[in-house]
Order: sequence, then structure tokens, then C-alpha cells
Amino acid sequence: MGLPTAVVVGVGVEQGVGGAVCRRFAAEGYHVLAAGHTAAKIGQVVDAIRAAGGSAQAVVTDTTSETDVERLFDLAMTPGAGREPADLVVFNAGNNQVIDFRTLTAAQFESFWRVGCFGGFLVGREAARRLAPLGRGTVIFTGASGSLRGKPGFAHFAAAKAGLRMLSQSMAREFGPLGLHVAHVVIDGGINGERLRSVMPKMVAQRGEDGLLDVDAIAETYWQLHRQPRSAWAQEIDLRPYKESF
Amino acid sequence: MGLPTAVVVGVGVEQGVGGAVCRRFAAEGYHVLAAGHTAAKIGQVVDAIRAAGGSAQAVVTDTTSETDVERLFDLAMTPGAGREPADLVVFNAGNNQVIDFRTLTAAQFESFWRVGCFGGFLVGREAARRLAPLGRGTVIFTGASGSLRGKPGFAHFAAAKAGLRMLSQSMAREFGPLGLHVAHVVIDGGINGERLRSVMPKMVAQRGEDGLLDVDAIAETYWQLHRQPRSAWAQEIDLRPYKESF
Amino acid sequence: MGLPTAVVVGVGVEQGVGGAVCRRFAAEGYHVLAAGHTAAKIGQVVDAIRAAGGSAQAVVTDTTSETDVERLFDLAMTPGAGREPADLVVFNAGNNQVIDFRTLTAAQFESFWRVGCFGGFLVGREAARRLAPLGRGTVIFTGASGSLRGKPGFAHFAAAKAGLRMLSQSMAREFGPLGLHVAHVVIDGGINGERLRSVMPKMVAQRGEDGLLDVDAIAETYWQLHRQPRSAWAQEIDLRPYKESF
Amino acid sequence: MGLPTAVVVGVGVEQGVGGAVCRRFAAEGYHVLAAGHTAAKIGQVVDAIRAAGGSAQAVVTDTTSETDVERLFDLAMTPGAGREPADLVVFNAGNNQVIDFRTLTAAQFESFWRVGCFGGFLVGREAARRLAPLGRGTVIFTGASGSLRGKPGFAHFAAAKAGLRMLSQSMAREFGPLGLHVAHVVIDGGINGERLRSVMPKMVAQRGEDGLLDVDAIAETYWQLHRQPRSAWAQEIDLRPYKESF
Repeated sequence: MGLPTAVVVGVGVEQGVGGAVCRRFAAEGYHVLAAGHTAAKIGQVVDAIRAAGGSAQAVVTDTTSETDVERLFDLAMTPGAGREPADLVVFNAGNNQVIDFRTLTAAQFESFWRVGCFGGFLVGREAARRLAPLGRGTVIFTGASGSLRGKPGFAHFAAAKAGLRMLSQSMAREFGPLGLHVAHVVIDGGINGERLRSVMPKMVAQRGEDGLLDVDAIAETYWQLHRQPRSAWAQEIDLRPYKESF
Repeated sequence: MGLPTAVVVGVGVEQGVGGAVCRRFAAEGYHVLAAGHTAAKIGQVVDAIRAAGGSAQAVVTDTTSETDVERLFDLAMTPGAGREPADLVVFNAGNNQVIDFRTLTAAQFESFWRVGCFGGFLVGREAARRLAPLGRGTVIFTGASGSLRGKPGFAHFAAAKAGLRMLSQSMAREFGPLGLHVAHVVIDGGINGERLRSVMPKMVAQRGEDGLLDVDAIAETYWQLHRQPRSAWAQEIDLRPYKESF
Repeated sequence: MGLPTAVVVGVGVEQGVGGAVCRRFAAEGYHVLAAGHTAAKIGQVVDAIRAAGGSAQAVVTDTTSETDVERLFDLAMTPGAGREPADLVVFNAGNNQVIDFRTLTAAQFESFWRVGCFGGFLVGREAARRLAPLGRGTVIFTGASGSLRGKPGFAHFAAAKAGLRMLSQSMAREFGPLGLHVAHVVIDGGINGERLRSVMPKMVAQRGEDGLLDVDAIAETYWQLHRQPRSAWAQEIDLRPYKESF
Repeated sequence: MGLPTAVVVGVGVEQGVGGAVCRRFAAEGYHVLAAGHTAAKIGQVVDAIRAAGGSAQAVVTDTTSETDVERLFDLAMTPGAGREPADLVVFNAGNNQVIDFRTLTAAQFESFWRVGCFGGFLVGREAARRLAPLGRGTVIFTGASGSLRGKPGFAHFAAAKAGLRMLSQSMAREFGPLGLHVAHVVIDGGINGERLRSVMPKMVAQRGEDGLLDVDAIAETYWQLHRQPRSAWAQEIDLRPYKESF
């Protein structure tokens, strides 16, 4: 028996959710396929895992390309040297940005959907195709408060995220009874990572460390979702820092 | 003072929601721009309105084309012979079809989004651009039970419809305070129209007339939403036949 | 054929929702049974209706007393001089008040439930018992933003209102197919009435007339809900002033 | 340093959620105060914990009595022989039963509220009073699908459960920022326990072991919620067996 395999789609910087999820799964003995569009960034995540004694490999992937996603799953499902076919998939790709609605371009609206929703469909469909026949596995989608609620400046983001949530819910209702656990994590709040630290240092300082979402704490929830026995599966869970108003 | 003008996007057969909304607005004295992709179908709706003494014109429109939608609003907002600029907009485009998730193609997933969500963005954005500065007007989006809930065979539909709902909610929160009423109607149930009558005649017979949604009854709610004074606006309302389980 | 009869439970001051609903129904030719606990207040509403040529009577009712509510429906369902049994029922009783959670007494928590939820059960059950066998009628419950969302200082209010909403939803699912229309109106925002005018005159002035909910505009929606044909019934609708953030 | 202390309110039979939560917390080194109304039942849970080497005590409690609940918290917060004041509270009381709406008595409607919602208020308020000033702790409420949705035969249950959910949400929004984690677990499905086994043996057999909720799997989620660091707290999570339709 080789290592179990996990596929994490949407891995960027080390201090992002994708990177933390990769590290968490590797720490549990998983071989991790870290998929993202920037080789340098996923390379850093993989290097850190290896340096800690874990097993991982970088797979440069355009998550909006059907070919790339199919190729990623071909790789993931082929038992390799010392590892089993994947049974754990995370879709974490997505952007966020405030854009004034009246100046939002058609290209921007489409781009947010393509990365945040269409890519999730490609990954979700491959996961369903490959894992449902095996009657096992976990697929986790990363959501946001925008998944549940539209607000000024976020129409493009909420439209994509709500679409991803419905995808996750449709999959859960269809594939849960076949043994595939499909979950959706609503991440509500600022991530305590490189982006906020550089862009909004004052806000970070004011909130305090725990006033922002710690990516390792988020990753722990992803791991616990995967560990749930099928007699008590969660479909949706929200995560926010204790100080976050909601 | 000329006639007030309404724009109804997504007009197909006469016994559909779009056609009924056109007729209802025309009956209230509106000049109606009936926009849809099939000249013959919107032509029938316009002919029926004119035969009843109303005022309407067909505008062949690809609702997924930015150019077409902008052109439609250029027309709608230009005071014409005997009519005022538009103050009432309905987005009603969209398809529905059960498709097995694992065989759903990328092109199908995209097509449902493009017609059901992206087209709504184009229409919503033009409405916001043109009407918000005037501090008045109504924009109504047609939703479905899939706007709120994903289920097997409907991932593509729910993903598009939930995106449209978030668009509507984002617009309501931004443009309501500027005087633009943005509403979302969740239509839950089978439409008593040509499609169901030909495809599922037994179901129609079994449910009885009122067991399916009457398009004129739906159109009445659209009209009442437009009539609401700004001191008590609805953002969302659901409509279903009395026998519909939910 | 006599006048149709409506029962409005929870009628207080003239410029409240209950009073406005009574006036609206009377203006449509209904005989209105105005039920509330304060004879003087419901008397004023009835007097105003009569002065305008309408038909109404005051029924002093403790809406939390099973006996009183049964008596009210005995009266409402008995065809009287020139009127038919009731086919339209509104439950509008309820209080609101910010109370700090840690100092909230058990008696306060219970009192909000008894008025806002238990009374609704008594009225809803009598309506179901009397109207469902006839296969017709409308029951409308008044909700609030607290029906959907709990927040600091409003635990008691939200717990009662959410309970009332579930009551309404359970009734709709059971009695809709039998021909009884059950609807829930989420009223979100300050009422432009006597209470706010005396307690928060500055807020009223700052919001402007349309920045608060006009009770007659709310009553119009109640009337339109009753008018809906059974082929397209609404179960829930939200109402808020255009400036209200949500 | 003594053992940490947990209070579990609503402990009945060993194979119920309350009993399983007690066992799980005891297995993590907690001293567990098992509160319920039947001495014999909570005694069995406590005995089993002690037999396994854990620490627990039975506290016969009428969870609808303010005096009893205050007394329970007086006990829980007083550091005792070898234990610390409580930092973990679970409210799990509640009944469920299908009752026809039109024959539902006022006493039944009130009883479901008193046990399922009012008791939760008493426990939640004491927890807030005692733990919020300390800036730490976890309070978990047990919900159900009825917390979110009313349906025929369950009006009384849904009204109580939805009220409890709003209580939990109000508390989370107020006390989260003070360091008290308030979570709500929506348990959706049949419990694989003594009640279903005796009442519906065929259904249990047909579903298979994992087709029903395993109480130990549920208890694991309660424990994981308590373990979450405050930088990423969940407010709500749903749990259902993989075969459950929803």
C-alpha cells in the first residue's frame, strides 16, 4: 500500500488557504498534488512540504482548462510509485476584488465566473466521474460570505461564488448517497496572509492575530471534514474569526 | 407626455412568462420593447398586443451580446414618437433542462450561465447605468427554485440561477438607496404553457389548470412589484401553484 | 350575499400595520373584525373605517388566550347580518424592544414568545381548522428581519419571530394543497408611525417620509397577496424602505 | 490544575447524542456534568464514563426551570476537588414527534417550546453570564432540519427549533467578539439509537448502519468545534448520514 493521494486545486502563496491545506494533508501522510497556475508559487509549497518530510508534487494547471483539469485527474487517479489513487479533492481557486458595478466590464464578470465557478465545475465533474464509481472520497469547495449574500461592489464575486455553492449542493445531493462526501466551507473574513499584510498592514495590526483567519486553522477544518465517517457528514460549515461581525 | 416604456428581455412564446409580462405592461398603458432572439416569436407577442390596442415593438436581441444589450437600452432610453424613456426592465431569459452531471459538457455548463446569468449581468448593468442616475425605475429578474437550491440533474441550472440572484441582491443593496427598485421573483413550479402541454400532457391533466403556474398570474405580480411605492419595496418573492410541494 | 369578512389580529394604533390592513380590507368591501387587547385603540380604527363608509367591528381579544381566539373565530365564521364567514385572516401581533441578553429575564423571553409566536399558533390553528375544510381562504403572518436573523439585543424577538415563520411555513406546506393560502411578510425597517415619530423624531426627519415604511403601502401588499389566484401564490415576501440597508 | 469541566444539558439514554457527547468529552480528560431530568438515565451515562476511567457526575435538572439551571451553573463554575470551572457547555434537550396541526393542543405547542427553546435560553443566558466575562469558552446548541424548515406535522417542533437557532445566532454575534464560541449543529436524519431500533426496526435494517446518524460521530463534531482556535470559528454546521435525502 502506498500513500493516499490528495489533489488541491488553487494553490498560490504559502500563506494562503490552498498552501495550508496541502501542508495539513501532507502532515497526515498524504501525497499531495498541488495544482495552481504559477509554477514558482506551488513550487514553494511543495518544497516546504518536502523539507518537513512530506510528499508532494507541483502540477501547473490552468484550472479553467478542461484539458488541464482532465490531465490533472488522470495523473491523480493513476497509482504511482508508492501512492494510491486520489480520494481527497479540494477546489480552492478564486479571486476577490471590489469593482464598481456600473464600470464592471463584461470580461471581468466572465473572468470571475470562469476562475471561481467554471473551474469548480471542471474539478467537481472530474471528481464525480472518477470517485463516485469507487463509492468513496471527499470533495471540498472553498466558499465565502459572497456565496450566500450579494452586496455593492461584489456582484461579480457573489455571482461566481453562489454558483459554486449550488454546484457543491447539487453534487452532494447526487453523489453523497453513492459514498462521495461533498462539502462547502464558507470562509468569512480576512485571511491572515501575505496579501492583507502588505495591502492593509494597519487593519491587520488593529485586528490582532486572531482577528483574522489563520490558514492553518482553516486547513484543520478541511481535514476534519475528510475524517468524518459517512454516518454523519457535513455539507456546509462557516468559518470566521471571533471578532468578525456577520 | 408620451407612453411610459418597458423593456422585457427574454420573450419567447406567447404562453411564456415574458410574453405575459409584455401583455400585462401594455394593458397598463406601457409601450413595450419585447426583446428575444427569435423574430417570429416576439413578433407574435407584439402582434397580439397591437391587436388588443396596445403599443409594442419587437427588438431581436442576443441577450448574451454586450453590443445587442447596449443597443437595446440605447433604443429604450431614447424618447421616441409618443413615448418616454424606459423606467421598467424585466430580465426573463433562461433555459432549463435536466442533464446528468457526469455527462454535462463544459459547453453546456457555460451556455446555461451565459444565457441565464451573464445576460442578466449585461441587462442589469445597463439598467443601473441608465436608471440609477435618474433616481427611479424598476428592474425585475426571473428566478427559480434552483436559485436557492441545487439538486441532481440541475447543477448547471442552479449555478446560473443562483448567480443571477446574487446579481439582483447586489444591485438591490447598491441601487435601492438611489431610487432604483431591484426585485427577484422565485418561480417555483411548472408553467401552464405550450412547452409542458406538448411535452407532458398527462402531468398537465393530472395537476389541473391551477396546479400549474398561470403566466398571467405571474405577470400580475411583476406589475404589482413595479407599482410598489419606494417606502415599502419587496426584494424577493416566491410564486408557486397551490398544489406544488416545496 | 353579504359582505366578505376579514379577521385582523393585533390591531393597535391607527398608524400601525394592523390598523392600515383593516382600512385597506374595508376599502375593498370587507367587513373587518379588528382584534386587539385595547378597546380604545381598536375602537379608533373601527370608527375611522365607519366614518369612511366601511364596515368593521372591534373585538377585544387577548391573542394569547385560547378561549379568546376560539371565540373570535366562532364570531368570524358565523354568517351575520349582511356578511359571509371569514375568508381572510391576518396575524399581526407582536412587540419589539432591545434588551441586553444577560439581563433578559425568563419572564421577558416568555412574554415575547407568547405574544409573537404562541398567539400566532392559536390564530393559525383556528384558521386552519375553520378554513381548510372549505378549501379556500388566506392567512397572512407579519414577520420581521428578526424572523431570519438573530442579533445582539434581539434574541427574544428573533426566537419568537423565527418560530412564527416556521409555523407559517409548516402551514403553507400542509394547507396550501387544500386551498388555503398561507403567506409570511418580512417587514424590515422602521414603521413611519406614531411610535417612531414620538420616540425618534430626528431619525424620522433624517430618513425622510419614504425612508420609513408607510403602513398603507404595507397593507397594499397584504391585499395583493390575498388577491393572488391559487395558480401563483407567494409564500414569503420582504418589504423595506428604499433607503434601508440590509 | 484540575480537570477542565463540561456541562452537557439534555442527557437521556446512553445511545443518544447527549450521552455520546458526555463520553467524548470525558475521553478528552474533561470532568462532565451530565444534566437531565431522569436520574436513572444520566446515572447510566455517568457509570459508563467512570467504568472507562473518566470523570463525571449526574445532576438531575429540570432544564425548563430557571432555578435548576442557575443551580447547575453555580455548581459548574465552582472549582471543585480536582476540577476547574466549566468552559464547555452543550444544550441538547428537545423532543420530536409528528402531531397533526389541527389537533395540536396549546399545551403541546407550549411544551415543545419550553423544552426545546426556553430551556436553551436559560442555559445560553447562564453560559453568557458566566463565561463571557472570562473571555473564553464554547456553547454548542443541538439543532435539526426543523431549525431551518417547517413542514406538515412538525409546526410545533420547527417553531421551537428555529427559535433556538436564532438564540444561538444572536449569542454568537454578541459574545463571539468577547471570546465565547457559540455554535449550532443542524442534525438532519435519524439517530442510530435505542428509540429508532425499537420503534422502526425495518427502517434501521433497510438503511444500514451508516444510513443513520451514529451518535459518536456526532459527538466527534462537537469536540472538534470546541477545539477550533478563535481565529477560525464555525457558527453552524449540518450533519446527516450519506444516504439522507435533503
